[in-house]
Amino acid sequence: MAFGAAMLATSLQAAQAPKNVILFIGDGMGPAYTTAFRYYQADSQVDRVSDTVFDRLMTGSASTFPHDDTVVTDSAAAATALATGTKSYNGAVGVDAEKQPLDSMLVRAKSLGWHTGVIATSQVTHATPASFVAHAHSRRDYQVIAEQFYSRRLKPDQPLVDLILGGGQSYFPMETDQLGDRMVRWGYQYQDKLEGLDKLTRLPVLGLFAPKGFPYAIDSDQPKRLSLMVEAGLRLLGGSDTPFFLMVEGSQIDWCGHGNDIACAMREMEDFAEALELAERFARDRGDTLVVFTADHSTGGLTLGAAGEYRWEAGPVKQVTASLPVLTQALLNQPAEAMTTILEQHVAFNFTPEEVQRLASVSAEESRLYTELMEMISARSFSGWTTTGHDAIDVPLGAIGPGAEKFVGHLDNTEISNTLQQMIR
Amino acid sequence: MAFGAAMLATSLQAAQAPKNVILFIGDGMGPAYTTAFRYYQADSQVDRVSDTVFDRLMTGSASTFPHDDTVVTDSAAAATALATGTKSYNGAVGVDAEKQPLDSMLVRAKSLGWHTGVIATSQVTHATPASFVAHAHSRRDYQVIAEQFYSRRLKPDQPLVDLILGGGQSYFPMETDQLGDRMVRWGYQYQDKLEGLDKLTRLPVLGLFAPKGFPYAIDSDQPKRLSLMVEAGLRLLGGSDTPFFLMVEGSQIDWCGHGNDIACAMREMEDFAEALELAERFARDRGDTLVVFTADHSTGGLTLGAAGEYRWEAGPVKQVTASLPVLTQALLNQPAEAMTTILEQHVAFNFTPEEVQRLASVSAEESRLYTELMEMISARSFSGWTTTGHDAIDVPLGAIGPGAEKFVGHLDNTEISNTLQQMIR
Ligand SMILES: [Zn+2]
Ligand SMILES: [Zn+2]
Repeated sequence: MAFGAAMLATSLQAAQAPKNVILFIGDGMGPAYTTAFRYYQADSQVDRVSDTVFDRLMTGSASTFPHDDTVVTDSAAAATALATGTKSYNGAVGVDAEKQPLDSMLVRAKSLGWHTGVIATSQVTHATPASFVAHAHSRRDYQVIAEQFYSRRLKPDQPLVDLILGGGQSYFPMETDQLGDRMVRWGYQYQDKLEGLDKLTRLPVLGLFAPKGFPYAIDSDQPKRLSLMVEAGLRLLGGSDTPFFLMVEGSQIDWCGHGNDIACAMREMEDFAEALELAERFARDRGDTLVVFTADHSTGGLTLGAAGEYRWEAGPVKQVTASLPVLTQALLNQPAEAMTTILEQHVAFNFTPEEVQRLASVSAEESRLYTELMEMISARSFSGWTTTGHDAIDVPLGAIGPGAEKFVGHLDNTEISNTLQQMIR
Repeated sequence: MAFGAAMLATSLQAAQAPKNVILFIGDGMGPAYTTAFRYYQADSQVDRVSDTVFDRLMTGSASTFPHDDTVVTDSAAAATALATGTKSYNGAVGVDAEKQPLDSMLVRAKSLGWHTGVIATSQVTHATPASFVAHAHSRRDYQVIAEQFYSRRLKPDQPLVDLILGGGQSYFPMETDQLGDRMVRWGYQYQDKLEGLDKLTRLPVLGLFAPKGFPYAIDSDQPKRLSLMVEAGLRLLGGSDTPFFLMVEGSQIDWCGHGNDIACAMREMEDFAEALELAERFARDRGDTLVVFTADHSTGGLTLGAAGEYRWEAGPVKQVTASLPVLTQALLNQPAEAMTTILEQHVAFNFTPEEVQRLASVSAEESRLYTELMEMISARSFSGWTTTGHDAIDVPLGAIGPGAEKFVGHLDNTEISNTLQQMIR
């Protein structure tokens, strides 16, 4: 922990240990995302600006650089640092720079007899949740990772992960003797539709609601899917005298960021914020639960200002009601006349005739069509992007509950992990 | 103050009031700048990364939106918010949205009998220092602002500002009966060279070391000019039983940001960091001084990542030893052969023959030449920029000393001001 923060912390009463620990990770959620979300939620008008859950819980910032000779991390190295307290190479899932296995705080919690859970809007085998559960030399080893959700146990009769909610049906097939089927026969309650969440009545549970990742919130008729899963998770884990550790990932903020898709990103932020608010309320009501939020890194080089103009406009962002991939597919190979109608179905502001003409001129070229659309929507909102990858900028950090004061200041992602691990005892 | 932060603060011992208050403002210093500076200082290698003074003091973040119908502030509205606790319009200096005068925390300190000071690397009449001292409907009213450094007094025989160090000789002419001369005859000790700082022996002092702003640190043989002024300021203000309020601005981080000039920005950060470290040491040695740092806004839409690459490289940034304006002037109207030699004088990495050819092809067009150079240096370092103006992203906030715990969390810039004003009592 940074010196200044350490000085502040020592001026505090000795920290009470929390009964439960919940870690929220906004994948790709750099400071431009939490800032933008405040103004998105407020319609950018000064008299309507109010604190978001991120503002209420904010305690500092975190650095995210990996062990590699670059300061820009990928999600796997960052999740491994957050889960285990050890920096590793980009691509590593729960292993160190020498590819040796590392134990995560979820494993630590289980070794103490706690209940454990992971919730994500990606497939649960994706880099972030995977780093809390599995070891893999490469984040792309999805099936190797999936097997470990079941096979990795500290005691033969106990699951490592009591609550698994997210996407990833493809990696847990329910055919006889396949992974999902084996887990159900072993005792996991299983649901494959969000409507079935309330049929999950006791641990362990496996809820997989999409073949891989969920559809984007902006494209979905269930845009609050993370909030729904967190609500169920808190009900299932919170109704017991046994302490619990829960990791919650807003996985797709990052994916929208890679696509430089501001409307997509803000809808993901909305679901993530609502899920975090559920945990904030849980922590406030109970007084025995530490909730920490951070991001694994920032994505896309998002900034809120472009073209020399002193503006960032939330209005146009709200007026877009489909992701860029969906918009692009809808417009692909369409003539200019059809485009206007299609755009009106998905976007509440009017594209100029010149813009429609420009789209029509590349209507057969998917990636150029995507880029043109992206640039038009970014220009309307004065959103700036500098990359389709990640960037190195420090990410927000916040906490509430017993031990929250330990997260005041600037912490490296490994310090966040090590501090959390001290709370799990 | 945010709810979470308020909860943390109430768990603290009742705050001791500081004797002295120092506010550091990094103009334009968004989170990408403090992040970049960490890796710039560390050569980007993981085993050499260590905390900066910003990391050590970090307590949270600040929002910067002005009273206008935009979320992107200018320096005047932001400085007015920080100085007075009231949001105003872009361009306002110490006046509210109805153009009514507002009292700053410097004025409050003086009204309590404190010593007061402002230090900047811009002209001291520039928006940020001006908002602590003067009232003006427009930030461009430099002469109106300069007059108020002398004419605005709470008591006829006492100066409002006991210590004035920075640029701006042009606005304080030393000819008989002109402003500067009147101030000296009235009792201000005056120096016009940094070497003369140690000849300033007692308050009030006026030190103006450049006609307007200082040259950029990167172009200067005195790159640590802010640190030198802060050292003198702490000596002059700190050697008294009288409490003091001091505002210190790293003015030109912003100017480099407007120019999308990463090497220029990092050298300004270096001077600002060293100046802040002097105050950090002062606070730690004395125990009676509150030091707060923040930024008025972020500039340029700087991010650390570009072109899909997971990289940001400090090496090339260090290898550039002139600002883009100086480089551009040196190359203007030069043939390709001369360019290579000129570039070698200022930049330690080699430009490719294709790059030199490209520069030569626009050698007569100043602004295109500037842009080509900027893009080449940004590309080498994977620095991304989205605007030549400001952006809306939340800025860092940090504190050390008695009362520092009040700055934990997310605060609006007006809340920073109001909290500081409660400390001045
Ligand atoms: Zn990513
Ligand atoms: Zn500026």
